[in-house]
Amino acid sequence: GYAWWFSGDSFSREAQEERMPRKRGIVYRISSHPGQLTIIYFMSLIFIATSLLLTPAASSSGKSTPFSTAFFTAVSALSTCGISIVNTTQHWSIFGQIVLIVAVQMGGLGVMTFASMIALAVNHHLKATQRLLTATELGTNKLNEIRSVLNVVLTITFSIEAITFVSLFPGLLSVNKSNVGKSLWEALFFAVMAYNNAGFTPDGAGLYVDKWEVGMPIMLSAFCGTLGFPVILNLVRTARQHKGVRRLNLHTKVTLLTTFIIVLISLFWFLIVEWNNQALFHNAGIEERMRRGVVAAVMPRSSGFDLSWVPKVSEPTKVFMSMVMFIGGGSTSTAGGIRVTTLAVIFLVCKTAFSGHADVNVFHRRIHMRVVMTAISITVSCLALVFVASVSLMMIEDVSFSHALFDACSAFGLGGYSVGVADADYPAALYVLAATMIIGRLGPMTIAYAVGRPHVVDAVRYPTDQIVVG
Amino acid sequence: GYAWWFSGDSFSREAQEERMPRKRGIVYRISSHPGQLTIIYFMSLIFIATSLLLTPAASSSGKSTPFSTAFFTAVSALSTCGISIVNTTQHWSIFGQIVLIVAVQMGGLGVMTFASMIALAVNHHLKATQRLLTATELGTNKLNEIRSVLNVVLTITFSIEAITFVSLFPGLLSVNKSNVGKSLWEALFFAVMAYNNAGFTPDGAGLYVDKWEVGMPIMLSAFCGTLGFPVILNLVRTARQHKGVRRLNLHTKVTLLTTFIIVLISLFWFLIVEWNNQALFHNAGIEERMRRGVVAAVMPRSSGFDLSWVPKVSEPTKVFMSMVMFIGGGSTSTAGGIRVTTLAVIFLVCKTAFSGHADVNVFHRRIHMRVVMTAISITVSCLALVFVASVSLMMIEDVSFSHALFDACSAFGLGGYSVGVADADYPAALYVLAATMIIGRLGPMTIAYAVGRPHVVDAVRYPTDQIVVG
Ligand SMILES: [K+]
Ligand SMILES: [K+]
Repeated sequence: GYAWWFSGDSFSREAQEERMPRKRGIVYRISSHPGQLTIIYFMSLIFIATSLLLTPAASSSGKSTPFSTAFFTAVSALSTCGISIVNTTQHWSIFGQIVLIVAVQMGGLGVMTFASMIALAVNHHLKATQRLLTATELGTNKLNEIRSVLNVVLTITFSIEAITFVSLFPGLLSVNKSNVGKSLWEALFFAVMAYNNAGFTPDGAGLYVDKWEVGMPIMLSAFCGTLGFPVILNLVRTARQHKGVRRLNLHTKVTLLTTFIIVLISLFWFLIVEWNNQALFHNAGIEERMRRGVVAAVMPRSSGFDLSWVPKVSEPTKVFMSMVMFIGGGSTSTAGGIRVTTLAVIFLVCKTAFSGHADVNVFHRRIHMRVVMTAISITVSCLALVFVASVSLMMIEDVSFSHALFDACSAFGLGGYSVGVADADYPAALYVLAATMIIGRLGPMTIAYAVGRPHVVDAVRYPTDQIVVG
Repeated sequence: GYAWWFSGDSFSREAQEERMPRKRGIVYRISSHPGQLTIIYFMSLIFIATSLLLTPAASSSGKSTPFSTAFFTAVSALSTCGISIVNTTQHWSIFGQIVLIVAVQMGGLGVMTFASMIALAVNHHLKATQRLLTATELGTNKLNEIRSVLNVVLTITFSIEAITFVSLFPGLLSVNKSNVGKSLWEALFFAVMAYNNAGFTPDGAGLYVDKWEVGMPIMLSAFCGTLGFPVILNLVRTARQHKGVRRLNLHTKVTLLTTFIIVLISLFWFLIVEWNNQALFHNAGIEERMRRGVVAAVMPRSSGFDLSWVPKVSEPTKVFMSMVMFIGGGSTSTAGGIRVTTLAVIFLVCKTAFSGHADVNVFHRRIHMRVVMTAISITVSCLALVFVASVSLMMIEDVSFSHALFDACSAFGLGGYSVGVADADYPAALYVLAATMIIGRLGPMTIAYAVGRPHVVDAVRYPTDQIVVG
């Protein structure tokens, strides 16, 4: 079973071993540093993918692609961001497109696996500092745990991708006028891109939202991808055991509730503010408007499909979408941003403060102060990053703040949309955005690891002193 | 002596009385609710000032001013924000200008007094919950304390204003070609506006930065105004007692250090990014550039003088200035924003988190968790406010995000600059900005009061449960 997932008990052996250090194998030592391991994994993949995309074989013209374009596309694929500065099907050959699919798949699997290992390590340390781990809880060993995490990640990923593939095929067959080969290829492409939340599209034109039998499976798969697989795992297991919604664990409850609220606010925003937007709603009837509204509310959070209408939204909507992309999706998912749980914790702190309580409680559980500090650190650091990136883009390209902010948030939150700031003519802007994507991919989980894990025991506790805020 | 100021010990009687409630006089009861009292004080003054400015006698043309303009100007003066939508000397008569001066003075005195009472009340409650107050510490009574606070506020305010007045007179006399009457009037006007950080100028044209004998006293007075009088009081007393810098209290140290860092970053920003800005630097020599750079670095934080160059800065600088205005000045000062100490606490939380500590320490003192939660609540609420205000302004006027953000931050942070969004032709925008000013004036201190004071004792302490952030 996967009872270890949120209990973290099986890490007790590591806790035990930390007190009595002894010689360990190289696998053990490498896997003890998931933070460093993640960085090495992504940097190697970026190097390999850039090299492959630079080869003449990767481009359909047979000429070598400029370095900035190849590097940016490799980072965009590996971070599952999906901003594309060239038309995916026109510029890249079949070989180049296969490199992109594999890169997205490796990036998605990598981030889910490492984020899980980090979450487990943090949880274990929180429990260890609270002395919730006892010597009798010695359980499975480290390698087994990594195998378990990998098993779960691979099983869920390939199951959902397979379901998406099968659901998409009939719809695409009718769209492609019974061209089986093309439909199979597009179904594979969409299946990988959707669950991994990378917004590359096989036809370069966007999404078939008008064909709901194609649009809906893609949207649902992308939505599952933004939740994070622990949430999906918890939902599947709770449903299988015929338990009620109340028995879902805290992380699942908070993720689902926050996601629901964000999607609902987005839906109302698009329906109210963009009601007259021709590019988005095409003056359609209520039913198609609702469908398009739901797609607009779900997609920008991380998936990045259906680009056609994005640059045509009003300025206030660009700001709103920037904020939604900055928040992003669920933890340990292929989505980016500061994560919905981080936002939820920040709001819970405010609620606690305003209601005069001392403990940050939700659903009859207390949020550990360490988690609160992690959430604050992530939010402040990432706000600073997005601010610096936006101002840099403004200086490089002389674009407006709303446009620079939009693309910076899209890169950081791995949204995959662009209002044109990501432009092949400005390599400097591409490097700024690529750096933002890499930090967006690795930053929040690395911060969570750095902040949540080590614990310095202070020798002295200083007296408090008054400081007036506000 | 003023030893009570940061010790809060003299509130012990109130603490005692809270445990044994009994009948109290009306003054006692009113003064027990500084939060409500502040709101009543400002609302009454806004009503009176608007009524006076609406009269034909207040305008130089002898015609009644439109309501939206009179209301906006009254709010702008009382909140010491200083955004003006009409030329102060051309539109208003001498009577109208006297109303403005009195409004600024009442607004400044009011906020300093109430903010101090709130800070004392919060401090007292923190001490009471920590059982640092004992029955033997029964001291002065409540009315005496209010008198003391008022005494200190009035003494410091009028001393600094008098010094500014005297320092300005010779310079203005030479500027006004020995016109004594005009110089006296302008010196009075500048003296009140500078310390209270309201950016109205008597000549409507801006500041005499080229005349350093006029520019410098104004800048120094405005800078003292942004620190908050507890800091000035602490500095004066420490200097008088010939104590070292180390003996300054925590609040003074944090305020001074944070202010210094912000001013230094601003100075570098203006010198680097705006080096070629004709409107700001006039292609001047190094010495005048430094002088203008310092003015540009100090002024936008809250004072709002010298408007000429502001709308001509580059887009990145508008974003940077928005951020600086959002941060604002010191607590219990006439400046606005979330306050520099709030920012400092947020940064200290991140520093603590990243270095793996549990206590938020600074200068060998621990910051109380209640203060941390207050700082987070203020920052999150005010970010949300500025975001909503900016988006509303964009919808009303169809201006760019950077412009809307600039004026929203200027209104919230009581900066007093405007890039033209505050426009008499758009009454709706004026009301949005006026509301933002009022919340900017009262919000942070009210939140500090609401969050810092009441303390619900939780009957149950829930177990912690894992939630993954980042
Ligand atoms: K994406
Ligand atoms: K001001």
